Amino acid sequence: MIKAFKKSSKSINYIESLRGKRATFMLALANSKTANIKGISQAGIDGLLHLTPTLDCEFLATGSIFSIDEIAKTDSGIPSPALITRAIHELNPFNLEFLDLGIEKKPKIEYFDIFDFKLKPSDRIDENAKIDSRSIFEKAINFANDYELKSDYLIVAETIPSGTTTAEASAKALGYDTKGLYASSFSKAPKDIKRKTIDRALLNISNDLDVFDRLSSVSDNMLIFYAGFIIGLSKKCRVILAGGTQLATVLLIINSILKEDKFTFSPENLALITTKWIYEDKHSDIEALLELLDFEVFGYYSDFDFSKSRFDILKKYDSGEAKEGVGAGGALGYASLNGISNESILESIENILERF
Amino acid sequence: MIKAFKKSSKSINYIESLRGKRATFMLALANSKTANIKGISQAGIDGLLHLTPTLDCEFLATGSIFSIDEIAKTDSGIPSPALITRAIHELNPFNLEFLDLGIEKKPKIEYFDIFDFKLKPSDRIDENAKIDSRSIFEKAINFANDYELKSDYLIVAETIPSGTTTAEASAKALGYDTKGLYASSFSKAPKDIKRKTIDRALLNISNDLDVFDRLSSVSDNMLIFYAGFIIGLSKKCRVILAGGTQLATVLLIINSILKEDKFTFSPENLALITTKWIYEDKHSDIEALLELLDFEVFGYYSDFDFSKSRFDILKKYDSGEAKEGVGAGGALGYASLNGISNESILESIENILERF
Repeated sequence: MIKAFKKSSKSINYIESLRGKRATFMLALANSKTANIKGISQAGIDGLLHLTPTLDCEFLATGSIFSIDEIAKTDSGIPSPALITRAIHELNPFNLEFLDLGIEKKPKIEYFDIFDFKLKPSDRIDENAKIDSRSIFEKAINFANDYELKSDYLIVAETIPSGTTTAEASAKALGYDTKGLYASSFSKAPKDIKRKTIDRALLNISNDLDVFDRLSSVSDNMLIFYAGFIIGLSKKCRVILAGGTQLATVLLIINSILKEDKFTFSPENLALITTKWIYEDKHSDIEALLELLDFEVFGYYSDFDFSKSRFDILKKYDSGEAKEGVGAGGALGYASLNGISNESILESIENILERF
Repeated sequence: MIKAFKKSSKSINYIESLRGKRATFMLALANSKTANIKGISQAGIDGLLHLTPTLDCEFLATGSIFSIDEIAKTDSGIPSPALITRAIHELNPFNLEFLDLGIEKKPKIEYFDIFDFKLKPSDRIDENAKIDSRSIFEKAINFANDYELKSDYLIVAETIPSGTTTAEASAKALGYDTKGLYASSFSKAPKDIKRKTIDRALLNISNDLDVFDRLSSVSDNMLIFYAGFIIGLSKKCRVILAGGTQLATVLLIINSILKEDKFTFSPENLALITTKWIYEDKHSDIEALLELLDFEVFGYYSDFDFSKSRFDILKKYDSGEAKEGVGAGGALGYASLNGISNESILESIENILERF
């Protein structure tokens, strides 16, 4: 089932009006060299963390991975949330689209729609990410203007290792008070390494910098691209941000851009859907992040969890060792909105696990 | 589930990129008087074999038959594979289109798209089929050029009694070494009658004949039409050949035509999907047939079978008494690609059987 952060006639209406509608699921792939900082993220295979977007993409698209031998998982062996999104794609398929926003290794997917924006992975934020954020933002606005939606609405999701770090740094660089609001893919978030990285990144931020200059220094390609894309697309169609604190940060970035520049923007077309694991996470506060916005965006979460799973490895999601990514929460919400029960989803996930 | 004959990143990608996409299911109806040769085919009701395409069409389109009182079945009572395709159409509907390529009796279907090419059933191949194959081929190329696909991709299928005989004769007439590669709708294929018919047909073939002259003598309207149609359509959209040895023969014919004439042809848009019964058939070898081609076309099969059925009559499929036809394999693959489980398919098939 899908639940509203705040129950109101409008928030319930928004989500119910998507029931039975077809979605395009768009996955943004990106790398930030921030992920090379030892111990900063557990979203991937040790030493091959940079391959996570590549493998997530292959796995979501095909149910197989081609670029290495095993599915992206954390050191403790938890499979990527791509597993959840793929299981739903097998039950009630999406129209899949991929964005290459600068990755180390191209995924081996022929025949799929992959939009390549000719970007390089961004640099470490503690050494200045040196992103040409204005150019990326402009590419995104143009892409939104040209974009033809092939379904009833769009779900946008991301896969970028160390993305919670670049997200938190971005929000802080823009002046938001985000203390205690940000999640990590770790259950015991490596606070020291993350905090040090973010603190070092923020040393490059001074009061005279505008929004784009700040983002160039401490953000990542996905956050900046989606900010432009969602501003541009909001007037054309309904867009679901499928994710947790990272996609909430996209909204914070939009919020800051709108204070400096004029754009037509229709926030009433937007919503965020995340997992129960993020919604109930004690280390972060997704609701509070949305409340920092000057416009309203409804938040929702799926009540799906692994309490009834036969696999201990999946129950680690319930203990907070993995929480969100590859749009898992949005995909779970999509399944609910199309009549798929939590039992069917669990069965589909476990069937896939057994194939491996 | 749908499985690739040969697992490769490209073959998995090809089929996975169709997940959730909508298909037009095109069924070619044709008669060859070859079916009048006593004992040559069991795909239909004894004495009324020529009505099989008419009844298959009515049944697929409407779930009922109008031109006689019972569904087309073999002498031993096995229902036509139209039952399988219909069951899937009821679960996850196709856009249906029909081609009238020369049939004895028009199906009673109003309101459906039926393209009529004003062709007559072809003659017995042992007495020279006397098909104007160039004209049919040209009509098919023109039809492909004008054709507007109303879905994401096209599935092409056939229903033509004695079609495995005309297919095998066509491949042999074109010089392919097809020993042991061809299926029949019989479990114990009536080899003697078929072999004699094919041998007699081949007496009309001499070395000085070009591809079209050979086909005119020993082929059938469906094979020739689909060869032209698929050549023409391959550059425009993805086309799934839903069938076994007959649709593989369409590819062999294309292969031979391309050696004599120049056409724009995009084999990378094509694939063949068949049933498990054809894939595992010991009397034929669908994989080997595809390997005779000078271009690559991926092959797949559905792992669906009737081992869990309550109906003995259906289990005869598993013992090889019926194997493929009316695009059953492609329809089963389509179901899998749209999240329909084998259990649901079986239930739908059995529900239809119980209605009769």
